[in-house]
Amino acid sequence: MDLELSQIFAPVQEDLARVRTELMSLSNVRFPWLSQVLEYVMKGAGKGLRPALTLLSGRFYRYNLQRLLPMAVSAELMHNSTLVHDDAIDKSSVRHGQTTVNKLWGDDIAILLGDYLFAKAGEYVAETQNPRVVKLFSQTLATISSGEINQFLYSFKLEQTREDYYKRIAGKTASLFSLATESGAILSDAPAEAVDILRDYGHNLGIAFQIVDDILDFVADEKTLGKPVGSDLAQGTLTLPAMIILERHPQDNPVKRLFETRDAKYRPVAIEMARDPSVVEESYKVAAGYCSRACMRLHLLPDNPARQSLIDLADYVIKRRK
Amino acid sequence: MDLELSQIFAPVQEDLARVRTELMSLSNVRFPWLSQVLEYVMKGAGKGLRPALTLLSGRFYRYNLQRLLPMAVSAELMHNSTLVHDDAIDKSSVRHGQTTVNKLWGDDIAILLGDYLFAKAGEYVAETQNPRVVKLFSQTLATISSGEINQFLYSFKLEQTREDYYKRIAGKTASLFSLATESGAILSDAPAEAVDILRDYGHNLGIAFQIVDDILDFVADEKTLGKPVGSDLAQGTLTLPAMIILERHPQDNPVKRLFETRDAKYRPVAIEMARDPSVVEESYKVAAGYCSRACMRLHLLPDNPARQSLIDLADYVIKRRK
Repeated sequence: MDLELSQIFAPVQEDLARVRTELMSLSNVRFPWLSQVLEYVMKGAGKGLRPALTLLSGRFYRYNLQRLLPMAVSAELMHNSTLVHDDAIDKSSVRHGQTTVNKLWGDDIAILLGDYLFAKAGEYVAETQNPRVVKLFSQTLATISSGEINQFLYSFKLEQTREDYYKRIAGKTASLFSLATESGAILSDAPAEAVDILRDYGHNLGIAFQIVDDILDFVADEKTLGKPVGSDLAQGTLTLPAMIILERHPQDNPVKRLFETRDAKYRPVAIEMARDPSVVEESYKVAAGYCSRACMRLHLLPDNPARQSLIDLADYVIKRRK
Repeated sequence: MDLELSQIFAPVQEDLARVRTELMSLSNVRFPWLSQVLEYVMKGAGKGLRPALTLLSGRFYRYNLQRLLPMAVSAELMHNSTLVHDDAIDKSSVRHGQTTVNKLWGDDIAILLGDYLFAKAGEYVAETQNPRVVKLFSQTLATISSGEINQFLYSFKLEQTREDYYKRIAGKTASLFSLATESGAILSDAPAEAVDILRDYGHNLGIAFQIVDDILDFVADEKTLGKPVGSDLAQGTLTLPAMIILERHPQDNPVKRLFETRDAKYRPVAIEMARDPSVVEESYKVAAGYCSRACMRLHLLPDNPARQSLIDLADYVIKRRK
């Protein structure tokens, strides 16, 4: 039986609720207008995967809620901050089924709001009082933003290897997953090997998560996805399913034509090809490989419900449909 | 005789050179393109006022270069990060006489580059290993970005008091000045009262600096200014000289007409009115008041060359022509 996220998060459920309360309290600011926008953004926030990863990763040694809670809040804020900027850059109109900030209030507000959310993330991370975690946090933002710059520069470029792709999604997605797990480990005084295991778990899970995201961008329907199908192609971002098409038909294919001409007429047939069961299956296999790698060394950690949650989460990531 | 900035910064000149070297070394990154943009931005950076404030403020007790240096670098990076985002928001084409990032490479790159610079600022502040300074740093960014959101929301609005104006420039400019001085004090183990004196110095100097900036926006020539004259009015930002016009001619004046109609034809006469010697003089008087307030308690600090530099700097700020 497939588990729901709420079941997987059971060992940290109560504290995850505190993270949510804290996030919602952010909209209590002096400026009524800012308050309204913050409430809107927080309402549209995702599944809370990153804070859950921090809390679960903190469950193996000295579970110190006073330090883990601000870190969990910080991870979710950083995530939302990058989403707000990304949507402005990609000119996206919908995210998680909700109209984006840039669409509603313009790019200018999106830039400033993203900065504000990031600043708040920084305030929370400072509350951990842990210089190593603060440094990791800043390094992660540098990785994410230079990764995004890279993605932007590579848009509509066909000369990309799978290695380039893995490196790109490591930067833009996996780095924040591994920040979440590594900081959870550090803040609970985990020994060096356990920190390493949990960092690797986060990294590999993040890669798998992004690959599945990239598959769903083709195969899910718009309603489940909460955004238009084929957005990546429309923005000229080459993802794994599209790369498989390029590999299989090196001479000529609709992805190549789309990228070379930027003519939208090639998009529907490219999407159709990416939805081919054998392309989807090959992509899922790669993601599943990263999920296995994520869990490979978890047995070296203390046996507890959180460990099972991390294993179940890897399973969830590969099976999720949205 | 009026002093040059380099003379004023004499007590920290060598270390300021190290800050510059460190900033230039930032462009040594893996991605050749990013490297080029970073070099460009750092080349166009300003007078190094904020790092100098950190270093000078660190001169009164235990001058600890290992902690002060990364903080000084961080302050300059945060400054440049907000400038890059501001220029994108304001659609500015020129800054410090150099074409802006948004103009050269587009808003998307400006968003990402600003994020990257901010991330780097965060990495440097983490190197201070001081949780209080890290927290201050994040709070300052939150203040700056919510202040900018506020300025954006108030653009082309006439219902603003001088208090609103002082609060606005406190957020967007003085907060970073006081971060620079306060962190310098904290990192040199200054006693609480000295931290307070130096924070206040930074705050008041920052307000004065911004008022003079707002005066120069009207009275300087484009070449000295490094950007078009009257930019603030063009963006609907109400500054002190324009407020004085509104106060003096409450019934009708070109600023009011410009803001109400947004018709550019009213701009030249509004600029002309703001350049009136009596408007300029009244504005400078307000700025001078903040400069005096900045220096009021400096005599309580140990008497050393850095203290004289802070006094000279307040004098420089009020007399500067660019």
